[in-house]
Amino acid sequence: MLQINSSRFFKRLNAINKLNSNISKNGINRIALTKKDKEARDIIVKWMKEIGLKIKIDKIGNIFGFNYFNKNSQPIVLGSHIDSVKNGGKYDGLVGVIGALEIIEILNSRKKKLPNIGIAIFTNEEGVRFSPDMMGSWSFIKSETINKIHSIKDDNNITIKQALKKINYLGREKQLFFKPKYFLELHIEQGPILDMNRKDIGIVNGVQAINWIKISLSGQSNHAGTTPNSNKIDPNRVFSEVLNYLYKKIKNNSKQLATIGKVEYYPNQTNVIPKQIVFTIDLRNINDLKLKNFKKDLVSKIIFYSKKYSITSKITELVNFKSVKFDKDLNNIIKKNILKNKLSYMNMFSGAGHDAQMISEICPTSMIFIPSKNGISHDKKEFTTKQQIKNGLNLLLNVTEDILR
Amino acid sequence: MLQINSSRFFKRLNAINKLNSNISKNGINRIALTKKDKEARDIIVKWMKEIGLKIKIDKIGNIFGFNYFNKNSQPIVLGSHIDSVKNGGKYDGLVGVIGALEIIEILNSRKKKLPNIGIAIFTNEEGVRFSPDMMGSWSFIKSETINKIHSIKDDNNITIKQALKKINYLGREKQLFFKPKYFLELHIEQGPILDMNRKDIGIVNGVQAINWIKISLSGQSNHAGTTPNSNKIDPNRVFSEVLNYLYKKIKNNSKQLATIGKVEYYPNQTNVIPKQIVFTIDLRNINDLKLKNFKKDLVSKIIFYSKKYSITSKITELVNFKSVKFDKDLNNIIKKNILKNKLSYMNMFSGAGHDAQMISEICPTSMIFIPSKNGISHDKKEFTTKQQIKNGLNLLLNVTEDILR
Repeated sequence: MLQINSSRFFKRLNAINKLNSNISKNGINRIALTKKDKEARDIIVKWMKEIGLKIKIDKIGNIFGFNYFNKNSQPIVLGSHIDSVKNGGKYDGLVGVIGALEIIEILNSRKKKLPNIGIAIFTNEEGVRFSPDMMGSWSFIKSETINKIHSIKDDNNITIKQALKKINYLGREKQLFFKPKYFLELHIEQGPILDMNRKDIGIVNGVQAINWIKISLSGQSNHAGTTPNSNKIDPNRVFSEVLNYLYKKIKNNSKQLATIGKVEYYPNQTNVIPKQIVFTIDLRNINDLKLKNFKKDLVSKIIFYSKKYSITSKITELVNFKSVKFDKDLNNIIKKNILKNKLSYMNMFSGAGHDAQMISEICPTSMIFIPSKNGISHDKKEFTTKQQIKNGLNLLLNVTEDILR
Repeated sequence: MLQINSSRFFKRLNAINKLNSNISKNGINRIALTKKDKEARDIIVKWMKEIGLKIKIDKIGNIFGFNYFNKNSQPIVLGSHIDSVKNGGKYDGLVGVIGALEIIEILNSRKKKLPNIGIAIFTNEEGVRFSPDMMGSWSFIKSETINKIHSIKDDNNITIKQALKKINYLGREKQLFFKPKYFLELHIEQGPILDMNRKDIGIVNGVQAINWIKISLSGQSNHAGTTPNSNKIDPNRVFSEVLNYLYKKIKNNSKQLATIGKVEYYPNQTNVIPKQIVFTIDLRNINDLKLKNFKKDLVSKIIFYSKKYSITSKITELVNFKSVKFDKDLNNIIKKNILKNKLSYMNMFSGAGHDAQMISEICPTSMIFIPSKNGISHDKKEFTTKQQIKNGLNLLLNVTEDILR
């Protein structure tokens, strides 16, 4: 069986990560559409050209590279994203992109006709500077929305289009300018399940549904020392009840995830009763209906407590992605090659959203998961061993060979 | 009886407030030791000089103006502060300073020997950019701490000393370079008590104790979608319990105030379980012992819940001011003049900290409170009627005349 060149792979992975300084303190800060993103893109595009790939860039800055290209050529596409969260890890996304490059280089080096294969690097999977996340892959399959997406702004009122122009990645290709035959994404699990179960590989049955809501609670700003407790119109009262309700509700529910990760107090001063608290809730569930009902109950509680404490609440939906099932035939091919490679495996759902879930709408798609130590991700402590990465890369290589036949 | 010139007073008050643009939207943003503070200081110093006052500035930037000055002259001092909170109101502090100027101008205009009187404008009463609050008056009475205070930094690592130099208010006078005979501060109540009770004047018996603590809760940053609920080390769990405990505890306690006004989440992203939550609690009580016990219970709960949820907590005390009693004889003189002026009044404690509480350590001191509409302060909606302000000013003028005799 063919094997990847792991020293070349890790040399490239490290070269991209080392564009960040002081990683042991700050982790990786390759936020989409920033200077750091551009630096990484430029180097990877150079490498893609060096192995003979033709580069195509679309209007959301997704980068594609192909051995051959015409509108109907239907290549097999491997890929992922290269952007990170703030203070993120070294593997999330990047392993799938550098891995795709390595696999195509190996396949191209055989003395045969070049395979009909390509690489995809999707813009802004993390959604840090510009929301929503999975923006590149989502935009790729929704050709009608590109103008709307271009006008999305960051916190400094800079639009996506301006940011794309600035880093020189506003491409010419229209969204959906081709359809892959298959799409495969190798990715770290970002959760503890493979690590806890000591498995090499996760066969990914699908992705759980994701729903982000933003809640704004407005009361009356006032002096902390002169306002009797009974006169306060303090949004903390509602926030406290919502936190309390949420954590009780998920305590004995292993399927429903809920996270409060982003919270802003206004005016945010020690001696001022807050005028406003704005926060987001990230809800995830494999089951679309259960997620919908959980959210419905949560929203009604927020409204109930807001009334109770004379707080004005405003609830906005930021993201709503239904759950996704990956291709069963592709997963059977993955399983066959796992057994051939004598690796251990388990079937699982993805907790995180991935570009693959978007691309699954237009072609047979699946993912290959490799373990994350202690399940830590989106953090500088994110870690996967070299052997675990090699297992994943060789498996992806063998699966790709199989479907090229 | 002498009367103040109210049109001159309001012209000056408005001139200082109008240094802020778009007040109806943003309120007043005259944060201590910023450019806006400097602009206001420069104009007020000019006015002080115009009525013949000799200016003295001390090492913390407190501004004093006197008719006469020598080390032992013991003037009667009127004053307050001119700095505001973020998005603050038009009256907090400034009324007492512009009022002092007006009263001295009236007293000086009589064809008599100039009275032995002065004005004090204390630096950074609000403690927004640099902590603690009441910094100028506190520093004035604590001569040994000036070097320590000079090295306090803002969020951008700029020291007080640098900030004072930048606005050109690092003065030469040592702390406690003189002692007032009396100190009197006219101030808006900043609470609803006078407004609710329809009283013109509050005679201030003292100031409640103030204790600020900063709590840092550290857990493990992780991916919101891939981390099972049972694996999360989420500081939200402790924050939720603390909020819940605190609001239950103060619900039926009208004497113990507690406010959570400043909260920061890190890294503050929707899809990342927070690594850290840092927040402050502002605690106030008339009774020092009760405040101490309340805080002790609160801290033990924070430690208890941190252990329970595997969170690392760090608790720091930022401010600890004991309760203060004002001068009874001075309050009797205030009461006598209230009756002479046919005003309504009530005795009360101050909920807010004031410069007067610091100065009360070195001379007989009291305050005169005027109503705040609906008790709203530290907000652009802060409001006191012209008549209420005039009542306070004329009372302060008459009290000052009385103690000059």
